[in-house]
Amino acid sequence: MQHLPGVGPKTAQRLALHLIKRPDEDVQALAQALLDAKQQVGFCQVCFHLSAEPVCEICRHPQRDPDTICVVSDSRDVIALEKTREYKGKYHVLGGVISPMDGIGPEQLTIQPLIRRVSQQQIKEVIIAISPSVEGETTTLYLGQLLRPFTKVTRIAFGLPMGGELEYADEITLARALEGRRELE
Amino acid sequence: MQHLPGVGPKTAQRLALHLIKRPDEDVQALAQALLDAKQQVGFCQVCFHLSAEPVCEICRHPQRDPDTICVVSDSRDVIALEKTREYKGKYHVLGGVISPMDGIGPEQLTIQPLIRRVSQQQIKEVIIAISPSVEGETTTLYLGQLLRPFTKVTRIAFGLPMGGELEYADEITLARALEGRRELE
Repeated sequence: MQHLPGVGPKTAQRLALHLIKRPDEDVQALAQALLDAKQQVGFCQVCFHLSAEPVCEICRHPQRDPDTICVVSDSRDVIALEKTREYKGKYHVLGGVISPMDGIGPEQLTIQPLIRRVSQQQIKEVIIAISPSVEGETTTLYLGQLLRPFTKVTRIAFGLPMGGELEYADEITLARALEGRRELE
Repeated sequence: MQHLPGVGPKTAQRLALHLIKRPDEDVQALAQALLDAKQQVGFCQVCFHLSAEPVCEICRHPQRDPDTICVVSDSRDVIALEKTREYKGKYHVLGGVISPMDGIGPEQLTIQPLIRRVSQQQIKEVIIAISPSVEGETTTLYLGQLLRPFTKVTRIAFGLPMGGELEYADEITLARALEGRRELE
């Protein structure tokens, strides 16, 4: 269990000792649940978000705006954005960001299916919501070039986080916050 | 010394014992430096930033754009923004934010002198750079209403901080990052 993310040697030992003490049925139920999850959960054919069905719940949802696609690198980002309850469009999960150092090029990501989606449907806006890092910037700019012939391409704002104090913000965040300033309405 | 910010009983004791062990001249020099600083450092007459002169170095600097004023709540924010080396205009230090709970209304801040500056000079843009909190928002909107008749009023961007992971951002920051999205250039 040490190989699980966030589980070090101590936690692994605690988990193992806990399971050994539980009744057999409980451990069997957990093992079965893990196998079932692994078997049943796959990727949505349309947006590549995790899904137990061939097409995920968000893609099938009739009330969600089909003209807007929010591009993220990972399914965890979909979950984070859904928690805001602000976004009502669809998603596209890339499965990572372009990172030549790690051997991840555009062909390892779901970029081709994204281009296909955007070129074949009437998409009004693609919102790129990728975390700001060198690889994230590269991926955003690359996607921008590919998608701009088909639709409007926007990216999420970078700046001061909520509850953040100007005084404690790092220089790059402050510089981006200044650069990204907008007219007060 | 316990009353100084960041100095609790333990640190106060450590500082006191340290000073007692130092030669007399050292302690006298420190005491004199404190008195001198208190006596010599005041507020700039124009922007209310800390200054040893009647008008501060930034206000007097001939290369700084006199048509742009960045409004901050505190002198510490000026120092933070100067570190970015991105901003080349002037400042205005409010001396706090509007906070009725703490008995701070507009008249306790340097808002009147700011209005006078903006109405009497040719100011092209006022950038409001106030940390996002309930009081900060109130102050920003209040200033926007007062200043908009005279000039363009902008505010710094709120969103994902640099190096921030989408997945770990709080909901309000993510919602603001989505809302503040801009077209990819």
